[in-house]
Amino acid sequence: MRSTETTRFSKAYQVRTEIEAILDELATDDPVPSERELAGRFGVARETVRQALRELLVAGRIRRRGRGTVVSRPKLVQPLSLRSYTEGAISQGRVPGRILVTWADEPADEDTADALALAPQTPVMHLERVLLADGERIGLESTYLPLHRFAHLYADYDPTTSLYAAIRRSGTALARASERVETVLATPREAGLLECTTALPVLLLHRRSVDAAGEPVERVRSLYRGDRVAFDTVLTDAG
Amino acid sequence: MRSTETTRFSKAYQVRTEIEAILDELATDDPVPSERELAGRFGVARETVRQALRELLVAGRIRRRGRGTVVSRPKLVQPLSLRSYTEGAISQGRVPGRILVTWADEPADEDTADALALAPQTPVMHLERVLLADGERIGLESTYLPLHRFAHLYADYDPTTSLYAAIRRSGTALARASERVETVLATPREAGLLECTTALPVLLLHRRSVDAAGEPVERVRSLYRGDRVAFDTVLTDAG
Repeated sequence: MRSTETTRFSKAYQVRTEIEAILDELATDDPVPSERELAGRFGVARETVRQALRELLVAGRIRRRGRGTVVSRPKLVQPLSLRSYTEGAISQGRVPGRILVTWADEPADEDTADALALAPQTPVMHLERVLLADGERIGLESTYLPLHRFAHLYADYDPTTSLYAAIRRSGTALARASERVETVLATPREAGLLECTTALPVLLLHRRSVDAAGEPVERVRSLYRGDRVAFDTVLTDAG
Repeated sequence: MRSTETTRFSKAYQVRTEIEAILDELATDDPVPSERELAGRFGVARETVRQALRELLVAGRIRRRGRGTVVSRPKLVQPLSLRSYTEGAISQGRVPGRILVTWADEPADEDTADALALAPQTPVMHLERVLLADGERIGLESTYLPLHRFAHLYADYDPTTSLYAAIRRSGTALARASERVETVLATPREAGLLECTTALPVLLLHRRSVDAAGEPVERVRSLYRGDRVAFDTVLTDAG
Protein backbone atom coordinates (compact mmCIF):
# COMPACT_ATOMS: atom_id res chain seq x y z
CA MET A 1 0.00 0.00 0.00
CA ARG A 2 3.00 2.31 0.31
CA SER A 3 2.65 5.01 -2.30
CA THR A 4 5.45 5.45 -4.78
CA GLU A 5 5.19 9.17 -4.08
CA THR A 6 6.75 8.70 -0.65
CA THR A 7 10.08 8.00 -2.31
CA ARG A 8 10.23 11.51 -3.82
CA PHE A 9 12.66 13.06 -1.30
CA SER A 10 14.64 16.02 -2.53
CA LYS A 11 18.25 16.62 -1.62
CA ALA A 12 17.29 20.05 -0.23
CA TYR A 13 14.97 18.32 2.22
CA GLN A 14 17.70 15.96 3.41
CA VAL A 15 20.03 18.93 3.88
CA ARG A 16 17.26 20.80 5.71
CA THR A 17 16.93 17.92 8.20
CA GLU A 18 20.69 17.97 8.80
CA ILE A 19 20.69 21.75 9.32
CA GLU A 20 17.78 21.42 11.76
CA ALA A 21 19.89 19.05 13.85
CA ILE A 22 22.60 21.75 13.95
CA LEU A 23 20.05 24.42 14.95
CA ASP A 24 18.78 22.20 17.78
CA GLU A 25 22.21 22.57 19.39
CA LEU A 26 22.24 26.39 19.10
CA ALA A 27 20.51 29.08 21.20
CA THR A 28 18.17 31.88 20.09
CA ASP A 29 20.06 34.62 18.20
CA ASP A 30 23.13 32.44 17.65
CA PRO A 31 24.51 32.90 14.12
CA VAL A 32 23.68 30.15 11.61
CA PRO A 33 26.73 28.72 9.78
CA SER A 34 27.19 30.24 6.34
CA GLU A 35 25.90 28.75 3.09
CA ARG A 36 29.47 28.10 2.01
CA GLU A 37 30.34 26.32 5.25
CA LEU A 38 27.18 24.18 5.17
CA ALA A 39 27.67 23.29 1.50
CA GLY A 40 31.22 22.19 2.31
CA ARG A 41 30.17 20.21 5.36
CA PHE A 42 27.44 18.26 3.53
CA GLY A 43 29.24 18.06 0.18
CA VAL A 44 26.35 19.62 -1.76
CA ALA A 45 25.89 22.63 -4.07
CA ARG A 46 25.40 26.08 -2.51
CA GLU A 47 22.01 26.28 -4.25
CA THR A 48 20.86 23.14 -2.39
CA VAL A 49 21.79 24.74 0.94
CA ARG A 50 20.12 28.00 -0.13
CA GLN A 51 16.84 26.15 -0.81
CA ALA A 52 16.96 24.41 2.59
CA LEU A 53 17.65 27.74 4.35
CA ARG A 54 14.71 29.34 2.50
CA GLU A 55 12.44 26.60 3.86
CA LEU A 56 13.76 27.08 7.40
CA LEU A 57 13.15 30.82 7.06
CA VAL A 58 9.50 30.23 6.06
CA ALA A 59 9.14 27.75 8.94
CA GLY A 60 10.43 30.41 11.36
CA ARG A 61 13.44 28.36 12.54
CA ILE A 62 15.92 31.01 11.36
CA ARG A 63 15.70 34.70 10.54
CA ARG A 64 17.67 37.40 8.82
CA ARG A 65 19.53 39.84 11.04
CA GLY A 66 21.44 42.55 9.24
CA ARG A 67 23.59 40.75 6.68
CA GLY A 68 23.56 37.46 8.56
CA THR A 69 21.14 34.76 9.64
CA VAL A 70 20.43 33.78 13.23
CA VAL A 71 18.40 31.17 15.10
CA SER A 72 14.82 32.38 15.74
CA ARG A 73 13.18 32.42 19.11
CA PRO A 74 10.26 29.96 19.39
CA LYS A 75 6.94 31.02 17.86
CA LEU A 76 4.53 33.07 19.93
CA VAL A 77 1.78 30.59 20.87
CA GLN A 78 -1.55 32.35 21.28
CA PRO A 79 -4.57 30.66 22.86
CA LEU A 80 -7.62 30.36 20.63
CA SER A 81 -9.80 32.09 23.25
CA LEU A 82 -11.75 35.21 24.05
CA ARG A 83 -8.78 36.56 25.97
CA SER A 84 -7.22 39.57 24.30
CA TYR A 85 -4.03 39.47 22.25
CA THR A 86 -2.46 41.51 25.07
CA GLU A 87 -3.14 38.85 27.69
CA GLY A 88 -1.96 36.07 25.40
CA ALA A 89 1.35 37.80 24.62
CA ILE A 90 2.03 38.72 28.25
CA SER A 91 1.36 35.15 29.38
CA GLN A 92 4.22 34.11 27.06
CA GLY A 93 6.62 36.71 28.44
CA ARG A 94 6.37 38.94 25.35
CA VAL A 95 5.71 42.69 25.34
CA PRO A 96 2.60 43.37 23.21
CA GLY A 97 2.28 46.49 21.08
CA ARG A 98 0.21 47.85 18.20
CA ILE A 99 0.72 50.24 15.30
CA LEU A 100 -2.40 52.02 14.09
CA VAL A 101 -2.97 51.70 10.33
CA THR A 102 -6.63 52.69 9.83
CA TRP A 103 -9.27 54.08 12.20
CA ALA A 104 -12.32 55.49 10.46
CA ASP A 105 -15.99 54.98 9.69
CA GLU A 106 -16.64 52.90 6.57
CA PRO A 107 -19.84 51.66 4.93
CA ALA A 108 -20.29 47.98 5.89
CA ASP A 109 -19.79 45.52 3.05
CA GLU A 110 -22.19 42.59 2.77
CA ASP A 111 -20.24 40.20 5.05
CA THR A 112 -19.66 42.84 7.73
CA ALA A 113 -23.28 44.01 7.69
CA ASP A 114 -24.41 40.40 7.98
CA ALA A 115 -22.04 39.66 10.89
CA LEU A 116 -23.08 42.80 12.79
CA ALA A 117 -26.82 42.46 11.97
CA LEU A 118 -26.88 45.83 10.19
CA ALA A 119 -28.26 46.92 6.84
CA PRO A 120 -25.58 46.85 4.11
CA GLN A 121 -23.76 50.19 3.71
CA THR A 122 -24.48 51.20 7.33
CA PRO A 123 -21.36 53.05 8.56
CA VAL A 124 -19.24 50.95 10.94
CA MET A 125 -16.02 51.71 12.81
CA HIS A 126 -13.00 50.08 11.14
CA LEU A 127 -9.90 49.71 13.29
CA GLU A 128 -6.84 48.17 11.59
CA ARG A 129 -3.65 47.60 13.54
CA VAL A 130 -0.33 45.84 13.16
CA LEU A 131 0.24 43.61 16.20
CA LEU A 132 3.72 43.59 17.73
CA ALA A 133 5.47 41.19 20.12
CA ASP A 134 8.68 42.63 21.59
CA GLY A 135 8.60 45.19 18.79
CA GLU A 136 8.38 42.58 16.00
CA ARG A 137 5.48 42.61 13.56
CA ILE A 138 3.53 39.39 14.00
CA GLY A 139 -0.03 40.13 12.89
CA LEU A 140 -2.45 42.48 11.18
CA GLU A 141 -5.87 42.83 12.79
CA SER A 142 -8.93 44.43 11.16
CA THR A 143 -11.87 44.97 13.51
CA TYR A 144 -15.34 46.21 12.54
CA LEU A 145 -17.55 47.61 15.33
CA PRO A 146 -21.17 48.83 15.27
CA LEU A 147 -21.15 52.62 15.72
CA HIS A 148 -24.34 52.71 17.78
CA ARG A 149 -22.47 50.82 20.51
CA PHE A 150 -18.88 52.02 20.16
CA ALA A 151 -18.72 55.53 18.66
CA HIS A 152 -17.54 56.71 22.10
CA LEU A 153 -14.21 54.91 21.52
CA TYR A 154 -13.10 57.78 19.23
CA ALA A 155 -13.15 60.00 22.35
CA ASP A 156 -11.90 57.72 25.11
CA TYR A 157 -9.75 54.94 23.61
CA ASP A 158 -6.04 54.80 22.76
CA PRO A 159 -5.82 52.44 19.75
CA THR A 160 -2.31 51.30 20.65
CA THR A 161 -3.78 49.57 23.74
CA SER A 162 -6.07 46.56 24.23
CA LEU A 163 -9.44 46.95 22.46
CA TYR A 164 -10.98 44.17 24.55
CA ALA A 165 -10.08 46.05 27.75
CA ALA A 166 -11.80 49.16 26.32
CA ILE A 167 -14.87 47.14 25.33
CA ARG A 168 -15.06 45.76 28.87
CA ARG A 169 -14.67 49.26 30.37
CA SER A 170 -17.60 50.40 28.24
CA GLY A 171 -19.76 47.82 30.03
CA THR A 172 -19.87 45.11 27.33
CA ALA A 173 -18.82 41.55 28.11
CA LEU A 174 -17.85 39.27 25.22
CA ALA A 175 -19.73 36.03 25.83
CA ARG A 176 -19.12 33.91 22.76
CA ALA A 177 -17.34 34.00 19.43
CA SER A 178 -17.22 31.83 16.34
CA GLU A 179 -13.80 31.63 14.76
CA ARG A 180 -12.62 30.26 11.42
CA VAL A 181 -8.96 29.43 10.85
CA GLU A 182 -7.46 29.22 7.36
CA THR A 183 -4.09 29.64 5.74
CA VAL A 184 -3.39 31.95 2.82
CA LEU A 185 -0.55 33.85 1.21
CA ALA A 186 -0.36 37.55 2.11
CA THR A 187 -1.33 40.09 -0.52
CA PRO A 188 1.31 42.70 -1.42
CA ARG A 189 -0.30 45.27 0.92
CA GLU A 190 -0.53 42.78 3.81
CA ALA A 191 3.03 41.56 3.23
CA GLY A 192 4.20 45.18 3.33
CA LEU A 193 2.48 45.81 6.65
CA LEU A 194 3.77 42.51 8.07
CA GLU A 195 7.28 43.11 6.68
CA CYS A 196 7.32 39.71 5.00
CA THR A 197 7.15 38.45 1.43
CA THR A 198 4.01 37.36 -0.44
CA ALA A 199 5.43 33.80 -0.44
CA LEU A 200 5.11 33.49 3.35
CA PRO A 201 2.07 31.48 4.47
CA VAL A 202 -0.03 33.38 6.99
CA LEU A 203 -2.83 32.26 9.28
CA LEU A 204 -6.13 33.98 8.58
CA LEU A 205 -8.65 34.13 11.43
CA HIS A 206 -12.22 35.32 11.05
CA ARG A 207 -14.02 36.04 14.31
CA ARG A 208 -17.55 37.16 15.13
CA SER A 209 -18.16 37.94 18.80
CA VAL A 210 -21.45 38.46 20.60
CA ASP A 211 -22.41 39.58 24.11
CA ALA A 212 -24.45 37.62 26.67
CA ALA A 213 -27.69 38.74 24.97
CA GLY A 214 -26.42 37.42 21.63
CA GLU A 215 -26.01 40.94 20.21
CA PRO A 216 -23.06 41.28 17.79
CA VAL A 217 -20.05 43.11 19.26
CA GLU A 218 -17.38 42.84 16.56
CA ARG A 219 -16.29 41.25 13.30
CA VAL A 220 -12.55 40.64 13.09
CA ARG A 221 -10.30 39.54 10.24
CA SER A 222 -6.75 38.93 11.44
CA LEU A 223 -3.64 37.70 9.74
CA TYR A 224 -0.67 36.23 11.60
CA ARG A 225 2.78 35.56 10.20
CA GLY A 226 3.12 31.78 9.90
CA ASP A 227 6.80 31.93 10.83
CA ARG A 228 6.13 33.75 14.11
CA VAL A 229 2.77 32.63 15.53
CA ALA A 230 0.93 29.38 16.34
CA PHE A 231 -2.41 28.85 18.10
CA ASP A 232 -3.26 26.47 20.91
CA THR A 233 -6.61 25.13 21.95
CA VAL A 234 -8.01 22.50 24.29
CA LEU A 235 -10.77 20.23 23.01
CA THR A 236 -13.17 18.38 25.30
CA ASP A 237 -16.13 15.98 24.98
CA ALA A 238 -15.85 13.10 22.56
CA GLY A 239 -19.39 13.81 21.24
CA MET B 1 -0.87 57.62 11.26
CA ARG B 2 -1.62 55.84 7.96
CA SER B 3 1.43 53.88 6.99
CA THR B 4 3.02 54.64 3.64
CA GLU B 5 3.15 50.87 3.12
CA THR B 6 -0.60 50.76 2.62
CA THR B 7 -0.17 52.46 -0.74
CA ARG B 8 1.86 49.54 -2.12
CA PHE B 9 -0.85 47.83 -4.18
CA SER B 10 0.32 45.74 -7.06
CA LYS B 11 -1.47 45.60 -10.38
CA ALA B 12 -1.79 41.81 -10.01
CA TYR B 13 -3.72 42.38 -6.80
CA GLN B 14 -6.13 44.81 -8.45
CA VAL B 15 -6.66 42.32 -11.28
CA ARG B 16 -7.18 39.55 -8.73
CA THR B 17 -9.98 41.56 -7.08
CA GLU B 18 -11.64 42.09 -10.45
CA ILE B 19 -11.40 38.38 -11.29
CA GLU B 20 -12.88 37.50 -7.89
CA ALA B 21 -15.93 39.62 -8.76
CA ILE B 22 -16.31 37.55 -11.95
CA LEU B 23 -15.95 34.26 -10.01
CA ASP B 24 -18.66 35.40 -7.56
CA GLU B 25 -21.10 35.28 -10.46
CA LEU B 26 -20.10 31.75 -11.54
CA ALA B 27 -21.03 28.34 -10.09
CA THR B 28 -18.74 25.53 -8.91
CA ASP B 29 -17.02 23.77 -11.85
CA ASP B 30 -17.86 26.57 -14.29
CA PRO B 31 -14.87 27.30 -16.57
CA VAL B 32 -12.82 30.41 -15.70
CA PRO B 33 -12.30 32.83 -18.63
CA SER B 34 -8.92 32.33 -20.30
CA GLU B 35 -5.78 34.36 -19.50
CA ARG B 36 -5.96 35.91 -22.93
CA GLU B 37 -9.61 36.92 -22.49
CA LEU B 38 -9.01 38.39 -19.01
CA ALA B 39 -5.90 40.27 -20.14
CA GLY B 40 -7.91 41.79 -22.99
CA ARG B 41 -10.84 42.68 -20.75
CA PHE B 42 -8.67 44.48 -18.15
CA GLY B 43 -6.13 45.85 -20.62
CA VAL B 44 -3.14 44.32 -18.78
CA ALA B 45 -0.28 41.98 -19.68
CA ARG B 46 -0.91 38.22 -19.74
CA GLU B 47 1.77 37.83 -17.03
CA THR B 48 -0.24 40.09 -14.70
CA VAL B 49 -3.33 37.90 -15.16
CA ARG B 50 -1.20 34.77 -14.70
CA GLN B 51 0.06 36.07 -11.33
CA ALA B 52 -3.48 36.86 -10.16
CA LEU B 53 -4.69 33.39 -11.23
CA ARG B 54 -1.77 31.79 -9.35
CA GLU B 55 -2.89 33.60 -6.18
CA LEU B 56 -6.50 32.48 -6.67
CA LEU B 57 -5.28 28.90 -7.16
CA VAL B 58 -3.38 29.02 -3.84
CA ALA B 59 -6.42 30.56 -2.14
CA GLY B 60 -8.57 27.67 -3.41
CA ARG B 61 -10.97 29.86 -5.43
CA ILE B 62 -10.10 28.16 -8.71
CA ARG B 63 -8.54 24.83 -9.66
CA ARG B 64 -7.00 23.09 -12.62
CA ARG B 65 -9.16 20.57 -14.42
CA GLY B 66 -7.55 18.81 -17.35
CA ARG B 67 -6.16 21.57 -19.54
CA GLY B 68 -8.51 24.24 -18.21
CA THR B 69 -9.31 26.06 -14.98
CA VAL B 70 -12.66 25.91 -13.18
CA VAL B 71 -14.29 27.54 -10.16
CA SER B 72 -13.58 25.54 -6.96
CA ARG B 73 -16.25 24.31 -4.62
CA PRO B 74 -16.10 25.99 -1.19
CA LYS B 75 -13.46 24.75 1.27
CA LEU B 76 -14.29 21.81 3.51
CA VAL B 77 -14.81 23.40 6.94
CA GLN B 78 -13.86 20.99 9.72
CA PRO B 79 -14.79 21.62 13.36
CA LEU B 80 -11.83 21.88 15.75
CA SER B 81 -13.27 19.17 17.98
CA LEU B 82 -12.85 15.63 19.20
CA ARG B 83 -15.24 14.43 16.55
CA SER B 84 -13.59 12.29 13.93
CA TYR B 85 -12.65 13.52 10.47
CA THR B 86 -15.36 11.17 9.16
CA GLU B 87 -18.11 12.88 11.14
CA GLY B 88 -16.89 16.34 10.16
CA ALA B 89 -16.80 15.52 6.45
CA ILE B 90 -20.21 13.83 6.47
CA SER B 91 -21.76 16.81 8.28
CA GLN B 92 -20.63 18.92 5.30
CA GLY B 93 -22.15 16.57 2.75
CA ARG B 94 -18.78 15.20 1.62
CA VAL B 95 -17.83 11.54 1.30
CA PRO B 96 -14.78 10.86 3.50
CA GLY B 97 -12.09 8.37 2.48
CA ARG B 98 -8.53 7.42 3.36
CA ILE B 99 -5.50 5.99 1.56
CA LEU B 100 -3.10 4.03 3.73
CA VAL B 101 0.51 5.19 3.41
CA THR B 102 2.27 3.69 6.46
CA TRP B 103 1.12 1.26 9.16
CA ALA B 104 3.92 -0.22 11.22
CA ASP B 105 5.63 -0.22 14.60
CA GLU B 106 8.34 2.41 14.97
CA PRO B 107 10.58 3.40 17.87
CA ALA B 108 9.12 6.54 19.46
CA ASP B 109 11.15 9.70 18.93
CA GLU B 110 11.58 12.09 21.85
CA ASP B 111 8.39 14.13 21.20
CA THR B 112 6.22 11.07 20.63
CA ALA B 113 7.58 9.27 23.72
CA ASP B 114 6.94 12.41 25.77
CA ALA B 115 3.37 12.81 24.45
CA LEU B 116 2.52 9.15 25.09
CA ALA B 117 4.32 8.96 28.47
CA LEU B 118 6.66 6.23 27.23
CA ALA B 119 10.42 5.78 27.40
CA PRO B 120 12.14 7.06 24.24
CA GLN B 121 12.60 4.35 21.58
CA THR B 122 9.65 2.32 22.91
CA PRO B 123 7.93 0.85 19.83
CA VAL B 124 4.66 2.63 18.96
CA MET B 125 2.11 2.05 16.22
CA HIS B 126 2.45 4.60 13.41
CA LEU B 127 -0.55 5.00 11.13
CA GLU B 128 -0.17 7.46 8.25
CA ARG B 129 -3.07 8.11 5.89
CA VAL B 130 -4.05 10.52 3.13
CA LEU B 131 -7.48 11.97 3.92
CA LEU B 132 -9.96 12.26 1.06
CA ALA B 133 -13.18 14.22 0.61
CA ASP B 134 -15.24 13.12 -2.39
CA GLY B 135 -12.09 11.39 -3.65
CA GLU B 136 -9.93 14.55 -3.48
CA ARG B 137 -6.77 14.58 -1.38
CA ILE B 138 -7.23 17.15 1.38
CA GLY B 139 -4.97 16.07 4.24
CA LEU B 140 -2.20 13.79 5.49
CA GLU B 141 -2.62 12.40 9.00
CA SER B 142 0.11 10.73 11.04
CA THR B 143 -1.10 9.05 14.24
CA TYR B 144 1.09 7.46 16.92
CA LEU B 145 -0.58 5.01 19.32
CA PRO B 146 0.80 3.16 22.37
CA LEU B 147 1.10 -0.54 21.51
CA HIS B 148 0.14 -1.76 24.98
CA ARG B 149 -3.32 -0.32 24.36
CA PHE B 150 -3.85 -0.68 20.64
CA ALA B 151 -1.81 -3.59 19.22
CA HIS B 152 -5.15 -5.36 18.65
CA LEU B 153 -5.93 -2.89 15.85
CA TYR B 154 -3.58 -4.79 13.54
CA ALA B 155 -6.05 -7.70 13.79
CA ASP B 156 -9.43 -6.01 13.88
CA TYR B 157 -9.21 -2.58 12.22
CA ASP B 158 -9.58 -1.54 8.58
CA PRO B 159 -7.28 1.52 8.21
CA THR B 160 -9.41 3.03 5.44
CA THR B 161 -12.17 3.60 8.03
CA SER B 162 -12.52 5.89 11.05
CA LEU B 163 -9.79 5.35 13.67
CA TYR B 164 -11.83 7.15 16.33
CA ALA B 165 -14.70 4.71 15.79
CA ALA B 166 -12.26 1.80 16.23
CA ILE B 167 -10.81 3.37 19.40
CA ARG B 168 -14.32 3.73 20.80
CA ARG B 169 -15.14 0.13 19.91
CA SER B 170 -12.08 -0.97 21.85
CA GLY B 171 -13.62 0.62 24.96
CA THR B 172 -11.57 3.84 25.09
CA ALA B 173 -13.31 7.23 25.20
CA LEU B 174 -11.33 10.30 24.17
CA ALA B 175 -11.98 12.85 26.90
CA ARG B 176 -9.69 15.75 26.11
CA ALA B 177 -7.07 16.88 23.60
CA SER B 178 -4.65 19.74 23.29
CA GLU B 179 -4.25 21.00 19.75
CA ARG B 180 -1.75 23.37 18.17
CA VAL B 181 -2.47 25.01 14.80
CA GLU B 182 0.32 26.38 12.60
CA THR B 183 0.89 27.05 8.94
CA VAL B 184 3.85 25.74 6.98
CA LEU B 185 4.87 24.89 3.44
CA ALA B 186 4.70 21.20 2.55
CA THR B 187 7.93 19.28 2.17
CA PRO B 188 8.47 17.54 -1.19
CA ARG B 189 7.27 14.21 0.23
CA GLU B 190 4.17 15.78 1.78
CA ALA B 191 3.40 17.77 -1.37
CA GLY B 192 3.67 14.53 -3.36
CA LEU B 193 1.20 12.75 -1.09
CA LEU B 194 -1.16 15.76 -1.11
CA GLU B 195 -0.79 16.22 -4.89
CA CYS B 196 0.10 19.88 -4.46
CA THR B 197 3.26 21.95 -4.87
CA THR B 198 5.72 22.85 -2.12
CA ALA B 199 4.62 26.51 -2.54
CA LEU B 200 1.12 25.77 -1.24
CA PRO B 201 0.59 26.80 2.40
CA VAL B 202 -0.77 23.94 4.50
CA LEU B 203 -2.30 23.91 7.97
CA LEU B 204 -0.32 21.82 10.45
CA LEU B 205 -2.20 20.47 13.47
CA HIS B 206 -0.54 18.74 16.42
CA ARG B 207 -2.91 16.89 18.72
CA ARG B 208 -2.41 14.93 21.93
CA SER B 209 -5.50 13.15 23.21
CA VAL B 210 -6.10 11.56 26.61
CA ASP B 211 -8.88 9.43 28.07
CA ALA B 212 -11.03 10.23 31.11
CA ALA B 213 -8.26 9.00 33.44
CA GLY B 214 -5.77 11.35 31.78
CA GLU B 215 -3.91 8.46 30.13
CA PRO B 216 -2.45 9.31 26.69
CA VAL B 217 -4.37 7.78 23.78
CA GLU B 218 -2.69 9.24 20.68
CA ARG B 219 -0.29 11.79 19.27
CA VAL B 220 -1.32 13.13 15.86
CA ARG B 221 0.45 15.34 13.34
CA SER B 222 -1.84 16.27 10.48
CA LEU B 223 -1.44 18.48 7.45
CA TYR B 224 -4.34 19.96 5.52
CA ARG B 225 -4.18 21.62 2.10
CA GLY B 226 -4.76 25.33 2.69
CA ASP B 227 -6.70 25.67 -0.57
CA ARG B 228 -9.20 22.96 0.40
CA VAL B 229 -9.73 23.05 4.18
CA ALA B 230 -10.56 25.55 6.94
CA PHE B 231 -11.30 24.97 10.62
CA ASP B 232 -14.13 26.34 12.73
CA THR B 233 -14.36 26.70 16.47
CA VAL B 234 -16.62 28.33 19.02
CA LEU B 235 -15.03 30.28 21.87
CA THR B 236 -16.79 30.97 25.15
CA ASP B 237 -16.03 32.73 28.46
CA ALA B 238 -14.42 36.14 28.35
CA GLY B 239 -11.93 35.11 31.12
